[in-house]
Amino acid sequence: MRWRSVLPRLGYELPPDLTPPSANGPLTPSVPLELIRQSVSAREYWDIPEPVAEQYRRYRPTPLWRATAFERAIGAEVPVYVKYEGGNISGSHKLNTALAQAYYYQRAGVRELVTGTGAGQWGTALAAACAAFGLSCTVFMVGGSLRDKPYRGSLMRLLGAQVHASPSGLTEIGHQGGGNSLALAIGEAVEYAKAGAGRAFCIGSGENYSILHQSVIGQEAIEQLSTLDAEVDTVIGCVGAGSNFGGIALPFFSGDDQGPTLLAAESSSTPKLTRGVYAYDLTDATGTGPMEAMYTIGSQYSIPASHSAGLRFHGAAKLLSAMRHRGQIAATAVGQRAALEAGRAFAGSELIVPAPESGHALAAAASVVTGRDAKHRGGRGVLVCVSGHGLLDLAAYDQLLAGQLTDLAADPEAVELATAALTRVDNTLVEVN
Amino acid sequence: MRWRSVLPRLGYELPPDLTPPSANGPLTPSVPLELIRQSVSAREYWDIPEPVAEQYRRYRPTPLWRATAFERAIGAEVPVYVKYEGGNISGSHKLNTALAQAYYYQRAGVRELVTGTGAGQWGTALAAACAAFGLSCTVFMVGGSLRDKPYRGSLMRLLGAQVHASPSGLTEIGHQGGGNSLALAIGEAVEYAKAGAGRAFCIGSGENYSILHQSVIGQEAIEQLSTLDAEVDTVIGCVGAGSNFGGIALPFFSGDDQGPTLLAAESSSTPKLTRGVYAYDLTDATGTGPMEAMYTIGSQYSIPASHSAGLRFHGAAKLLSAMRHRGQIAATAVGQRAALEAGRAFAGSELIVPAPESGHALAAAASVVTGRDAKHRGGRGVLVCVSGHGLLDLAAYDQLLAGQLTDLAADPEAVELATAALTRVDNTLVEVN
Repeated sequence: MRWRSVLPRLGYELPPDLTPPSANGPLTPSVPLELIRQSVSAREYWDIPEPVAEQYRRYRPTPLWRATAFERAIGAEVPVYVKYEGGNISGSHKLNTALAQAYYYQRAGVRELVTGTGAGQWGTALAAACAAFGLSCTVFMVGGSLRDKPYRGSLMRLLGAQVHASPSGLTEIGHQGGGNSLALAIGEAVEYAKAGAGRAFCIGSGENYSILHQSVIGQEAIEQLSTLDAEVDTVIGCVGAGSNFGGIALPFFSGDDQGPTLLAAESSSTPKLTRGVYAYDLTDATGTGPMEAMYTIGSQYSIPASHSAGLRFHGAAKLLSAMRHRGQIAATAVGQRAALEAGRAFAGSELIVPAPESGHALAAAASVVTGRDAKHRGGRGVLVCVSGHGLLDLAAYDQLLAGQLTDLAADPEAVELATAALTRVDNTLVEVN
Repeated sequence: MRWRSVLPRLGYELPPDLTPPSANGPLTPSVPLELIRQSVSAREYWDIPEPVAEQYRRYRPTPLWRATAFERAIGAEVPVYVKYEGGNISGSHKLNTALAQAYYYQRAGVRELVTGTGAGQWGTALAAACAAFGLSCTVFMVGGSLRDKPYRGSLMRLLGAQVHASPSGLTEIGHQGGGNSLALAIGEAVEYAKAGAGRAFCIGSGENYSILHQSVIGQEAIEQLSTLDAEVDTVIGCVGAGSNFGGIALPFFSGDDQGPTLLAAESSSTPKLTRGVYAYDLTDATGTGPMEAMYTIGSQYSIPASHSAGLRFHGAAKLLSAMRHRGQIAATAVGQRAALEAGRAFAGSELIVPAPESGHALAAAASVVTGRDAKHRGGRGVLVCVSGHGLLDLAAYDQLLAGQLTDLAADPEAVELATAALTRVDNTLVEVN
C-alpha cells in the first residue's frame, strides 16, 4: 500500500494561498520539506516510510463489512457497506496522518509537537504518534470540549502529552479570546510553538498532505469491496475540515465522471459546503497562517456548541473546496439529532458506538438508502466511513435518550455578516443549496 | 472454530455443588438445558450455533501480536505476545459468553435477561447481546462503580438496557444491604428475575459454560502463535471469577504436565487463589444459589473499593479452584498501582489503553519477563491476554498520574474471620502462598 494523491487527477491546479494582510512580509512555513512536497507535487503514489507502515500495521487494514443489521434497523433498500476507523487508540482516522507527521517532524529534528484540537481525537492521535516516535507533545484543546469530555484529556496525558484548555492564558491570542473555538485553540498552538526552540505546530486536517495520508482508508476500501464483489454508487464521509471525507472518498475519484457520487456530510451548525461562500479566508484565528481559497462560513463566525466538536470548523480544506466548486463532490448538511439517532441505530444493530461526527455520515447514508429513489438505484450500495468511536462521547447520547438534544443550525444572517468582507475566489459568489 | 471444554482433560470430576442451609428444599436452576449440558458433560468440542458465530465474526478472530514496543518499555528478556479482547462494543472478552447465553435464553423462550455487574463490562456485553437477539435487558450495577463510571451506564442504556445502581431499592436484599458489592448486585438481579414472568437471571463468569464459551480466545491464540512460529512457556490472564483466565489459558492445558505454566493474576485486594481457602461458599449474597467448592476469601468479606471492579469477586470459579487445588494452574496477586503502571507502559508503547483489570495480567507478565530468571528461560515467550480496554476507566489512570493511587491489600484477619465458618473441601485447609 502507498499513499495516493488525487492532485494529478483533478484536471486543474488549486488556487494559490495568499499572505494575510496582518502578516509582516512573506510567510515561511515551518513544515518538513517532504510534507510540502506531498502537498504540491503532481506525483500520484507516495511510498509510506517503513516506520510509519510498521505503526499502521498495528491497526490497519481497518475492517469493512456489509452492515446488514443496520440495514434492517433503518429499512435500507440497498446494501450499506461500512468502513470503520475507530479501532485505534485515538478512536478515529486521525492517527493515519498523526503518525506520518510525527515521523517527518522527528526526522526534521523537531523535539516537541504542538497542536490544537476540538473534540480531542486529533490531540489524542498526535499524543499517541509522539509516544510512538519519542517526541514531546503539547495540546491546546477547546476548553468547553475538555470540560465536557475530561477523559479525552486523561487519555492524552496517559500518553505523555501536556494538555491545556483553550483559551489557556499561556498565549497572547488566548488572552484576547475571540474567534471560534477550534480556530482559537489552533491559534494558541501556533503562537506557543513559535515561542520555543525545537517546537513545531502541526495540524490534523485540511492540508493536502493530511488528506494524502488518509488515502489509505479509501484504497483499502476499494480492495475490500472488490473482495466482497460489491459495487457502490455513493461514498459518504463526514466533514470537519475534510481529512476523513478526503480519505474515504478521493481514492474513488477517477476524474472522468465515471466514479461513484462522493457525498460530504457536514454539520448543519457549520454548513460551509452547503451554505458558505467560496472565498479566501484564514485557517486559524491568529491570522499568521496563509489565507486559503475555501468554502467558509467565516473564520470570525461564532459556531454554536455541539456534540460534534470535530465538525466545528468554519471552512473546508482547500482541496475539497475546489472540488466542490467544480462539481466533483457533493455535500449535504445534517442536524445533530439526526446524526445521533443514526448513531444510536448503528450502535444497537452493529454493536459499535459511532462518534457523533460519524453519525452525520450515517444519517446521510440512511437518507440515501431509504429515500424515495432508493429502490431505483439498481441495487448498487452505499459506502460510509465511520470515522471514529463514540465511547468518549456518551454524554451526547445521554442527552439524546433524555430527549434533551436540540438542533443548532447556523444563523444565515450571521454567516452572511461573517463572510461579507471576504474576497470571493474568481470574485464569484457561489450558490447556496 | 468450536468451543473446547477442559473438563475431559482434567483427570477428575469437580466437587458437587451443595444446597445452602437457607434454601427451602432442592434448588432448580433456571438455566437453559444446553448451558447445563455444557457445564457437566464430558464432551470436549461443542459446535457454536450459527447465529452466535455470525456475531463472533463481527469482532473475531481478535488480534494477537508480539508486543515489541512494550518489551522495550519494560526491558523484557523474552518475547511478550498479547491477545487483545477489548475491540468489541463491550470493551472486553465478556461478549463471547453474553452472545451465547442470550442466544440460548432466547431460544428457551425468555424475553428479558437480568444480571449484576461490577465494572460494567459484563452488563455492557449482555446489553449488546440482548440488542443482537431482540431481548430486553435489566442490569444491576455496583452503585459505586456506576457513580465512578457513569458512561458505562450510558453505554448500556444506549443499547436499550435498563440500568439500576445497586443497592437499588427495587429488591428486598437491596433494602437489607450487606455483603460485598458485586455479590449484592448479583443477589438483586437474582431476586428481580424471579419476580417477573419471562425473565431470567444470567451471569458472566464463573460458570463452566461461560468458561467454555471463552475458549475461543485461547484456541485462536494457539493458531495465531503457530502462524507466527512462536512458542510460549507461560500463559497469563487476570482473574475476577475466572472466565477471561479460563478462556486464554485452558485451551493450552494438556493434562500431562507438558503445557505452559498457566498463571492467574488476581488483585491483591481479592486474593482468593493466593490467600483464600478452598471451601464451600455462596456465589452471591442472596444465598439462594448453590454453594460451590471454590477458593474464597468469604462471600461476607467486605472487599475494599478499587479501580478493578471486574476483579472484585470473593471467589474463583469452581473449575479454576479445583485446578488450583490440584496444582494445574498457578496464581499471583498484583496490587492496583503495579497493575496501572503496567497498563500505562502498555498504552504508551503499544498504543492501546488496557482496562485496569488487564493491567494485573500485564504486571504479572512484566514480572515474569524481567525477573532474575527471565534470561534463563531459553527464549520462549509469554502470552498475556489483555481482556479489555480502559477507555471508560481513565479516572483510574488520572489518579495514577497524580500520584494518588494506593494499594489496597486484603486484610488477612478479616479474610480469616470471613472464612472461618466455611466448610473446607475435603476438610483440608489449603496452604497459602
